Amino acid sequence: MTKIGIIGSKGRMGAALAEAVMQAGCELSGGADKGDDVRPLIAKSDVLVDFSAPAALEATLDACVTAGKPIVIGTTGLEERHHWLIDDAAADIAVLQTGNTSLGVNMLSFLVEEAARRLGPDWDIEIAESHHRHKVDAPSGTALLLGAAAAKGRNIDLASHSERGRDGITGARAEGAIGFASLRGGSIAGDHSVLFAGEGETMTLAHHAQDRSIFANGAVKAAIWLLHQDKGRYDMKGVLGL
Amino acid sequence: MTKIGIIGSKGRMGAALAEAVMQAGCELSGGADKGDDVRPLIAKSDVLVDFSAPAALEATLDACVTAGKPIVIGTTGLEERHHWLIDDAAADIAVLQTGNTSLGVNMLSFLVEEAARRLGPDWDIEIAESHHRHKVDAPSGTALLLGAAAAKGRNIDLASHSERGRDGITGARAEGAIGFASLRGGSIAGDHSVLFAGEGETMTLAHHAQDRSIFANGAVKAAIWLLHQDKGRYDMKGVLGL
Amino acid sequence: MTKIGIIGSKGRMGAALAEAVMQAGCELSGGADKGDDVRPLIAKSDVLVDFSAPAALEATLDACVTAGKPIVIGTTGLEERHHWLIDDAAADIAVLQTGNTSLGVNMLSFLVEEAARRLGPDWDIEIAESHHRHKVDAPSGTALLLGAAAAKGRNIDLASHSERGRDGITGARAEGAIGFASLRGGSIAGDHSVLFAGEGETMTLAHHAQDRSIFANGAVKAAIWLLHQDKGRYDMKGVLGL
Amino acid sequence: MTKIGIIGSKGRMGAALAEAVMQAGCELSGGADKGDDVRPLIAKSDVLVDFSAPAALEATLDACVTAGKPIVIGTTGLEERHHWLIDDAAADIAVLQTGNTSLGVNMLSFLVEEAARRLGPDWDIEIAESHHRHKVDAPSGTALLLGAAAAKGRNIDLASHSERGRDGITGARAEGAIGFASLRGGSIAGDHSVLFAGEGETMTLAHHAQDRSIFANGAVKAAIWLLHQDKGRYDMKGVLGL
Repeated sequence: MTKIGIIGSKGRMGAALAEAVMQAGCELSGGADKGDDVRPLIAKSDVLVDFSAPAALEATLDACVTAGKPIVIGTTGLEERHHWLIDDAAADIAVLQTGNTSLGVNMLSFLVEEAARRLGPDWDIEIAESHHRHKVDAPSGTALLLGAAAAKGRNIDLASHSERGRDGITGARAEGAIGFASLRGGSIAGDHSVLFAGEGETMTLAHHAQDRSIFANGAVKAAIWLLHQDKGRYDMKGVLGL
Repeated sequence: MTKIGIIGSKGRMGAALAEAVMQAGCELSGGADKGDDVRPLIAKSDVLVDFSAPAALEATLDACVTAGKPIVIGTTGLEERHHWLIDDAAADIAVLQTGNTSLGVNMLSFLVEEAARRLGPDWDIEIAESHHRHKVDAPSGTALLLGAAAAKGRNIDLASHSERGRDGITGARAEGAIGFASLRGGSIAGDHSVLFAGEGETMTLAHHAQDRSIFANGAVKAAIWLLHQDKGRYDMKGVLGL
Repeated sequence: MTKIGIIGSKGRMGAALAEAVMQAGCELSGGADKGDDVRPLIAKSDVLVDFSAPAALEATLDACVTAGKPIVIGTTGLEERHHWLIDDAAADIAVLQTGNTSLGVNMLSFLVEEAARRLGPDWDIEIAESHHRHKVDAPSGTALLLGAAAAKGRNIDLASHSERGRDGITGARAEGAIGFASLRGGSIAGDHSVLFAGEGETMTLAHHAQDRSIFANGAVKAAIWLLHQDKGRYDMKGVLGL
Repeated sequence: MTKIGIIGSKGRMGAALAEAVMQAGCELSGGADKGDDVRPLIAKSDVLVDFSAPAALEATLDACVTAGKPIVIGTTGLEERHHWLIDDAAADIAVLQTGNTSLGVNMLSFLVEEAARRLGPDWDIEIAESHHRHKVDAPSGTALLLGAAAAKGRNIDLASHSERGRDGITGARAEGAIGFASLRGGSIAGDHSVLFAGEGETMTLAHHAQDRSIFANGAVKAAIWLLHQDKGRYDMKGVLGL
């Protein structure tokens, strides 16, 4: 039975991960949190799932490399230097790093890139997202990830082609722009839709998260998949065979 | 056969009105435009439909009062003094003034007000709208009309409770706020949705306009209805029996 | 502190009710299940919530009448004779019976009836619902409840105006029909939408349930509201002030 | 200037094609209809667009082959023998045959096949479509085309895996089934959505047709593209670069 260790095991996400490990028929080898030495956990795990904080990443990666254990990193707020650390570790072990562990969101991202590539610039792209009332930033990280996929498909730079927060006299839509709109309310776990608006027709590609368990389930699927990969750096596309 | 005269008969809306008059089995008594004397048209019409410009409103209302003919006013961009002129005319004739002649939008507005009244402030209200790429302002007039209906149902002031154009670090949603989000693209004639987001559930009330003919058809329905009303000022609610 | 007793306290719905009681700041006075004598529970409760089985209803109502305690009945599968029992009990105590305790669904039902009444028969009504892959019947009870609201608004009989399960050469839509369509998949907790399709425009009134907690929360809200009502029979409309 | 000839030039589709030819900056070389000799039209055209009837197809293809002119065939109701005729002609000229000339629908079909291939059978697939009240068959041809794409992606046979017209006690959803649901009302030009419903999340891929002009515009785009192709048989995927 595959033994999965959780780094960042307290809190809501840690609990969801523990449940996902068991639902996947795996064994929970244990958890580690802020201040803990992660090495004993890594020693008794086949693969690690890390949803803790960027500050702990360097020590965690060092310990994984030393032990030769693969790791899935879902921690958010990573800076450029964290990505260098990941690249370094990936020379020795298999590392999967992603901003979103949901299979559906990653599938959507792939489809958005394909559609943006094929449909051409006379189809306007708009990304709308809805989240619960407590969310403090807009657009969501996932909306930006989808925007990046659209920009990549169109071979343009996202930052210089974004229209965000439309309000007042905005003027007509800029040609080739990618628009973003954010709704907030209630307990919405996360809805995202990408609208391709052409002349006389629209295509909408959308994802709905019922609750946060999908991120835990996706992370565990990724961990199981990662066990069978060579050293190197991966993202969720590999898990989906994309 | 009811004779309907169109003020503002040139351009796309004038053409749509002419077609709507005929589809409703009425007679088009004629059209008048900028620079025309409206009195001959009013004389040979049973009821008038005005989609021209605010500048012409005073002369048009005077002529309708003199002739004792009812009028539907769909002209946009009215200022406070235009509303006074309408109130004055309504002392003598039947006048229906509205910012949106679509039956569906007016029905939606009524439902939004009812829902906002009953559901209470723990249901967050968000209004999203999508329009074609050429639209230069946001949110749409209809989105603001729906926001006003929601604010009325909640007995709050809309201006001081609006969240528009979310972007960046916005902080958590303000309690009791009404949010607005605008999407632009392609040839979308006009989509509006009002989201009520509660704990664990959402209710969405939405309207989709296939093309601009609905505004012409609604205006003609309003004109036929207005013929049977006493002097006074009306809006589309009367046409829907609300 | 209001003491709420749960009849049918085991299983998923019982657990959700217990949580909802506490989240509402009330006291859980206890639970009773199949085979239990409900009288001790009723004695120590201010109000009861029953999500058990029709077979137990007669004894439960008798005990509530004897003790003079109000009761919310969310049990499904009631037959005509159960409704007679409820009417009888309502001569002595306050009884709220409903097929759906969600506030959103009941609000939607009210709006659907209003819209169907006002929009007239040239707006076609279609009801679509989506549920998880394990659901064995179609359309859902809530879809039928919404259909009944639409039929009531139009003053027609639902059974003789339903179009269900369209497949093959169906012919054109019957005038005045109310259509039903059912989708099944994944873990969808319950989505319902009512489409009003007119000439050139559509209006859609929709409800989305994130999970089953909304039924528990609505039942507890109903119980608290019922405490302040006189004897008589009620449904969720009263809770919403409709 | 590219000269495009229309076979089946009368009626609504013919008029839409004529407008689309002009909007694309091409020249309308003329039209032919039932009973006409198509050869003079073919002689003065660079490429043909055929939305006539299957009965005329053999003579049309013969004339195109003789003249060495490419042809786009959007005629519906083709039988097996018509497809053989097309294959024969494609040995000499470029022929594009398709059941749906909308770019958006063809793009959607490609995305549905990709998603079905990648997401695996624990994501249930449901296809819903909405059309105007006059449509006499269900599901729509486009819904079946999308179903075929999903089945191809999953490598299953559509006919033996379809669930259509759910009504009554249906039992739980069959594993691996592709469901279909049809809504009818008003003047809806054609909405299609493909739901992928997983555990805790859904992905929806949808297309909305504002009016029938998209089929004419897509056919003209296809004709312009076809001019630059070698002899052979094509479908809309080529136009989209898929």
